[in-house]
Amino acid sequence: MNEIEIKREILRFTNGQAEYIEDSIVTEYPVTIKINGEEFVTMVCTPEYIEDMVIGYLASEGIVRKYEDIQHIWMQEKEGFVHIKTNKLNPFSRNFQNKRYITSCCGMSRQGFVFVNDALTAKKMDTIHVKLTPEDCFRLMDEMQKSAIIFQKTGGVHNASLCDLNGCVLSRMDIGRHNALDKIYGYCLKNNITLSDKVLVFSGRISSEILLKVAKIGCEVVLSKSAPTERALQLAEELGITTVGFIRKQSLNVYTCPARIKIDSRQ
Amino acid sequence: MNEIEIKREILRFTNGQAEYIEDSIVTEYPVTIKINGEEFVTMVCTPEYIEDMVIGYLASEGIVRKYEDIQHIWMQEKEGFVHIKTNKLNPFSRNFQNKRYITSCCGMSRQGFVFVNDALTAKKMDTIHVKLTPEDCFRLMDEMQKSAIIFQKTGGVHNASLCDLNGCVLSRMDIGRHNALDKIYGYCLKNNITLSDKVLVFSGRISSEILLKVAKIGCEVVLSKSAPTERALQLAEELGITTVGFIRKQSLNVYTCPARIKIDSRQ
Repeated sequence: MNEIEIKREILRFTNGQAEYIEDSIVTEYPVTIKINGEEFVTMVCTPEYIEDMVIGYLASEGIVRKYEDIQHIWMQEKEGFVHIKTNKLNPFSRNFQNKRYITSCCGMSRQGFVFVNDALTAKKMDTIHVKLTPEDCFRLMDEMQKSAIIFQKTGGVHNASLCDLNGCVLSRMDIGRHNALDKIYGYCLKNNITLSDKVLVFSGRISSEILLKVAKIGCEVVLSKSAPTERALQLAEELGITTVGFIRKQSLNVYTCPARIKIDSRQ
Repeated sequence: MNEIEIKREILRFTNGQAEYIEDSIVTEYPVTIKINGEEFVTMVCTPEYIEDMVIGYLASEGIVRKYEDIQHIWMQEKEGFVHIKTNKLNPFSRNFQNKRYITSCCGMSRQGFVFVNDALTAKKMDTIHVKLTPEDCFRLMDEMQKSAIIFQKTGGVHNASLCDLNGCVLSRMDIGRHNALDKIYGYCLKNNITLSDKVLVFSGRISSEILLKVAKIGCEVVLSKSAPTERALQLAEELGITTVGFIRKQSLNVYTCPARIKIDSRQ
């Protein structure tokens, strides 16, 4: 097992005094995905829940459509390879990989998408399964942050929790923002977790890539400590996702689809 | 010109009170690089200094070796295309794009590299051109943060400044961590800026990717408000780069190559 943090001697300078101390530093671990023997992509991640991350990544990129499409998955941990065997490879996925989605060429109506894969895999949330009060938002953000032990020790990772109204169901962290969400997605696919009643709580900013991950995972609500981008909010409106940001102390911002946030306690 | 921030009505909930207010949100802008007519890559960025960013990106990926290798660069701003004409395309660059660098296969000694391109383009800093006191670090971090106007308004971007001991020479921001550094690199290549006496000041974490960008740009020192990763520190030691992190108030951590930090004022 590769370590997720290591001890290192560093020189700390505080209020005019210098001293050598031992500090905790997060590791980064390269993982190369090979599909049916062929090198597909290399990503760098925090070395835990790597299989889940790879499953979540392949599903969110549209490479496979469901967990059952993967016949076999195995790791060469020391070398950093994850091998996937599948006979259900999406035949179009390779062509679409990182290809620009040009709306005007396709005659499709989905605005705001940059990549073809995203336009094909992001789910639209037409219903309201989950409703939260602002107090729920503060409580879930607090719970997510308390579960972020490695962040508290190292300051070097992003954290994500899948929650229902009772609290965190699953918490994952990674040096890569997307990886933390892919680890959650992969776990949910493998274990058939119902997602429509869940909420994603995230430590980082909500860029369009993060918003799309939320839509691919299939959550109706994303809660963040930080700021969104305008493109993320456009996508959130189109996909019907409630985005709540800057959840700090007793303040939060509701950016899109406010119907899932019960501001008035009678709602 | 595409806007870098827009106004948006949001629902803010503070201390039990809800109100609709106008807020500033950063934009995200997709840019597709076409090299000699062929689609190369699509990235999402903050829409300013895009040409510089593209030049910096292509150089740091080893696609071109210097600014003069680009015969012509022009933008279709509305469509988000940047066109590059070159007859000096690195013939190997395509093959190495995102390809895993397997140390044991190549018989090369450079440890810690994940991608082939990085091992070929990251520069080793064998000399000491620049020395800073902790007070210099605090002052430059403070100056970088004061220049981060869009961050102060939106919370949605990363900031980087190229500094000498007198202060910030160049400040750039972007929703993408790497883009901010590529914008600095592209400007320096175009304008033949000497880099060995400069310091990079960065708002985000120092991952291996960020450390490699610093090495490619050619700076000896990187200052960050945040945490490094272990792989970044391994690379910093191998490449001779001084990394200083967690620069906050009157405290900082020197992680690698401390010879460039004058802890004792007599140094």
